[in-house]
Amino acid sequence: MKHNEQYINELNEFLEIPSISSMPEHKEDVKKAAEWLKGSLQKAGIENLEVIETEGHPIVYGDWLHAEGKPTVLIYGHYDVQPASPEELWETPAFEPTIRDDKLYARGATDDKGQLFIHVKAVEKLMQENGELPVNVKFCIEGEEEMASPNLPPFIEGNQEKLAADAVLISDTSFIEKGQPAICTSLRGALAMELNLKTANTDLHSGVYGGGVPNAIHSLVNLLDSLHDESGKVSVEGFYKGVQDPTSQLREEVASIPFDEEKTKEELGLEAFYGEEGFTFQERTGIRPTLEVNGLAGGFHEEGFKTIVPSEAHAKISCRLVGGQEPEEVFEAILNHLDKHKPVGASVETKKLITAKPVSLDSNNPMIQKAAAAYEKVYGVAPLFPKEGGSIPIVEVFSRVLRSPVVMMGFGLPSENLHAPNEHIHLENFTNGIETVTSYLKSL
Amino acid sequence: MKHNEQYINELNEFLEIPSISSMPEHKEDVKKAAEWLKGSLQKAGIENLEVIETEGHPIVYGDWLHAEGKPTVLIYGHYDVQPASPEELWETPAFEPTIRDDKLYARGATDDKGQLFIHVKAVEKLMQENGELPVNVKFCIEGEEEMASPNLPPFIEGNQEKLAADAVLISDTSFIEKGQPAICTSLRGALAMELNLKTANTDLHSGVYGGGVPNAIHSLVNLLDSLHDESGKVSVEGFYKGVQDPTSQLREEVASIPFDEEKTKEELGLEAFYGEEGFTFQERTGIRPTLEVNGLAGGFHEEGFKTIVPSEAHAKISCRLVGGQEPEEVFEAILNHLDKHKPVGASVETKKLITAKPVSLDSNNPMIQKAAAAYEKVYGVAPLFPKEGGSIPIVEVFSRVLRSPVVMMGFGLPSENLHAPNEHIHLENFTNGIETVTSYLKSL
Repeated sequence: MKHNEQYINELNEFLEIPSISSMPEHKEDVKKAAEWLKGSLQKAGIENLEVIETEGHPIVYGDWLHAEGKPTVLIYGHYDVQPASPEELWETPAFEPTIRDDKLYARGATDDKGQLFIHVKAVEKLMQENGELPVNVKFCIEGEEEMASPNLPPFIEGNQEKLAADAVLISDTSFIEKGQPAICTSLRGALAMELNLKTANTDLHSGVYGGGVPNAIHSLVNLLDSLHDESGKVSVEGFYKGVQDPTSQLREEVASIPFDEEKTKEELGLEAFYGEEGFTFQERTGIRPTLEVNGLAGGFHEEGFKTIVPSEAHAKISCRLVGGQEPEEVFEAILNHLDKHKPVGASVETKKLITAKPVSLDSNNPMIQKAAAAYEKVYGVAPLFPKEGGSIPIVEVFSRVLRSPVVMMGFGLPSENLHAPNEHIHLENFTNGIETVTSYLKSL
Repeated sequence: MKHNEQYINELNEFLEIPSISSMPEHKEDVKKAAEWLKGSLQKAGIENLEVIETEGHPIVYGDWLHAEGKPTVLIYGHYDVQPASPEELWETPAFEPTIRDDKLYARGATDDKGQLFIHVKAVEKLMQENGELPVNVKFCIEGEEEMASPNLPPFIEGNQEKLAADAVLISDTSFIEKGQPAICTSLRGALAMELNLKTANTDLHSGVYGGGVPNAIHSLVNLLDSLHDESGKVSVEGFYKGVQDPTSQLREEVASIPFDEEKTKEELGLEAFYGEEGFTFQERTGIRPTLEVNGLAGGFHEEGFKTIVPSEAHAKISCRLVGGQEPEEVFEAILNHLDKHKPVGASVETKKLITAKPVSLDSNNPMIQKAAAAYEKVYGVAPLFPKEGGSIPIVEVFSRVLRSPVVMMGFGLPSENLHAPNEHIHLENFTNGIETVTSYLKSL
C-alpha cells in the first residue's frame, strides 16, 4: 500500500513532542503539542482556532461551519500521551518515530496522536478536493486524557452550545483484529480509589513485638481478601445494585465477537481463566462489573531483609461498572464494607481518585450505521459492535451533556502496545482511516 | 558521673568508620574497622591477633592465655553496623559521634561497637592495674552480624579447640529499662523467607482482562490471609510441632518482668494489642512462636494510578521459633501450606533467607550467677532474667558447638534506637559497663 509521505512526515513531527500530561516536567511539551496541533488544523482549513487554557493542560478548539443545512460532527481526541517508561524496553526511542515493517513506532502512534491525525488529514483532503467540507465540523481536542480528563467535563458542561453536534466522532479504540473493524457501543464505567491502613505510628521490631501487636500487612490482606468470594464474585454488599442480568440477546451479541481462548492463554502465560461463576470470559470482561486491586505495598519489600512488624500498608483499587451502577454509590458501598470488615487495631483512610459512569450506545442509530457503511466500503468487511470492558469517561459525558450519539470509529489494533513500550500504528490503518473518515463525512 | 575521656575519644574513632556490612560499597570501611579493632586490642595487651579473611568480611581474633588454672572466657561481639538510612532523620550525622545529655549518638553506639568496646577497655584497665588478667581471655569479633552471620558458624565449627572456653560473654542486648539490668536467658529461633507469586507473563489492562483472569494480588492476599486464624494463631499445619505449653513456673517468670501495657500502647500509637488467644502480650512476644509478613508489594503502588491486573506480587515472611521447633521443618510446613492453599492460576516460588535455632540458657549456671553478682555490685540492683523474643543466631551456635554457657551481659537500653536513626548509648552504662565486666572477670 502506498502512503502519503507528507502526512507521515507531519505526524512524525507531532509524535516527536513528548507531551506526557501526567509528568509536570513535560508541561511545556504538552503546550507545544497543543500549539502544533492548532497550526496543523489551521493548515487543514479549520477556523476559529483557540488554545483554551484550563487548570491543567489546554483544550484545542476549532470549527468550520459553512455547510448550511448539513449535520454537525464534533471530533474529539487527545494530544497527550502516556509516559515512555520503561524506556529500556523500546527498540527505538519512544519520541523518535521509526517505521519498521509498515508500522510506525512511537509513543502516541496509536493512542491517540496517530488516530487523531487521521481526522486532521481527512478534513484537509476534503477541503483541498472540494474547497469546502460536506458537513459542519468542530474539533475539541484535550491534553489530559491520560490523566483521566479532570478539566474537560466542566468545559463541556459550560460550553454546550459551542459544542452542540449531531454526532460526536472519536477514534481512540481498536479493531477486533487486523482486517476486522469495530465500532464500540458500550463502555464500562470506572471507580478508582486508594486506601491506606495503619496499625501503629512506627514499624516495630518483629522479635520484640511480633505476635503481640496488629501487623498492618496481615490486616490489609485480610481486608482485601474479604472483597471477593472464592469464585471471584465481588462480596461487597450493594456492589451489584443496578446491574441487570444480561438478556439472551446481549449474551448472543457478546458471544458473536471472535475470541480464541487457547491462544490468549498461551500468549499471556495464563494457567487458567478465572472469574465470576455463570459467565463467560467475554461476559466477565465486557458486560459484568469488576473490582480489581491494581497495586499494593507495605513494610520492607526491597532486596534483603528487615524483621519488622509493619505499621502501614496501602493498596489501589479500581472497579469497572455497568448498567445502572453509580460510581458514587459503589464507592460508598466499598467504604461500608471496609469499615465493617476492618481488622482489630487497624485504621483505614481512603481516597477517591477517578469516577466514570458506564455508557451504552444504540448500534441502530443512523450516525453509527453510516460509520459502519464507511468501514465496509473501505475495508470490504462490515464492522462488529463489541461491548468494550474498558472505560473512556468522557464518552458518557459527551453522550449525556450534548445528547448526541457518540461514534467510536477506532483505527487501532489490540496488538499495538498502547500504554506499553514499542507502541505503534499500522500505516495501513492510518491511510485507510483517512479514506474511511472522508467517506463517512461525505455520507452524512 | 565522670567518664574516661580518653576511652570515649577512642570509641569515637571506632564509630566514625562506616562499617556497614550489608552495603558492598562499604567493604573497605568494614575492613578498616577490623584493622582498627585489632590495633585497639593490641594496645589493651591482647596477643596472637589476627584479622581472618572469610568469604565475606573478616573475623578479628586475639587472646591472652597466661592465667594458668583459671577459667577461659570467650568474648564475642561485632564491629559491623546497620545502614544509616533514613539519614535525614538523624539530628547529627550517623558517623559523626556527638554527645548530648550524657548520651553518645552514632550508628553503632549501642549495637554493637559501644558495647563491644566496654570489653576492650575492661581488659586494658585490668592489664594496666595488675600487669596481667585474672582469667584467660579470647576475643572473637565478627563483621557480619547485621547480615545474619553467614561465615561465623562454619568458622566456629572448624575452630572448636581455638575457641574453647568456659563461658562465652556477649554484650549485645539491653537492660529492661534504665537502672534495671538484665541477663537474657532465652532467644527465639528464626526463619526468614520470601515468596514470589505469578499469574501471567505481563501486567494486563484491567478494562480488557479484569474479572476474567487471575489477579496476582488477589491470589497473594488470599494466600497470606490463610496463614493465620482470626485470633492471630498460625494456621500452618505442623507449625507448632515441638512447641511445649509453658509451665506455670515459666509463665510466672515471664510475668515477673515489668511491662506497662498502657504506656506501650500510647507510645507506639496502638489501638489494641492483638495475638494468639490464651497468652499474654509478654508470652506472645517472648516465648510463643510467631509468623509475620514483614513486607509485600505488587502491581502499581506509586503516586498516581494504573488500571492493571497485576501479574506478579511478592512478600517477605519471618518466623520466631521456640522450644523444639526446627527451622527447616517449619520451612517445609510453610511450603506445604502454600502449595495446598495456592489459588487457581497462581504459581509460587519461595526462597529461604535465614534460619536460626531457638536457644534457652540456665540462669542457675554459676557463670551466669557470677555475672548477676557483678551487675548487683555496680548497679546496686540484681538483674532480671528475661526471655527475649528476638533472635541472635550465633548464640545457639556457640552454645551447641562449644558446649559452653553463654552469658548475655547487655549494657544497652531498649530506648537507644538500635537499627533506627539517632542510635545512642548512655555513657553511664558505658562507664559502669567497664566496671561490671572487670568485676565479673575478677570474680571468676
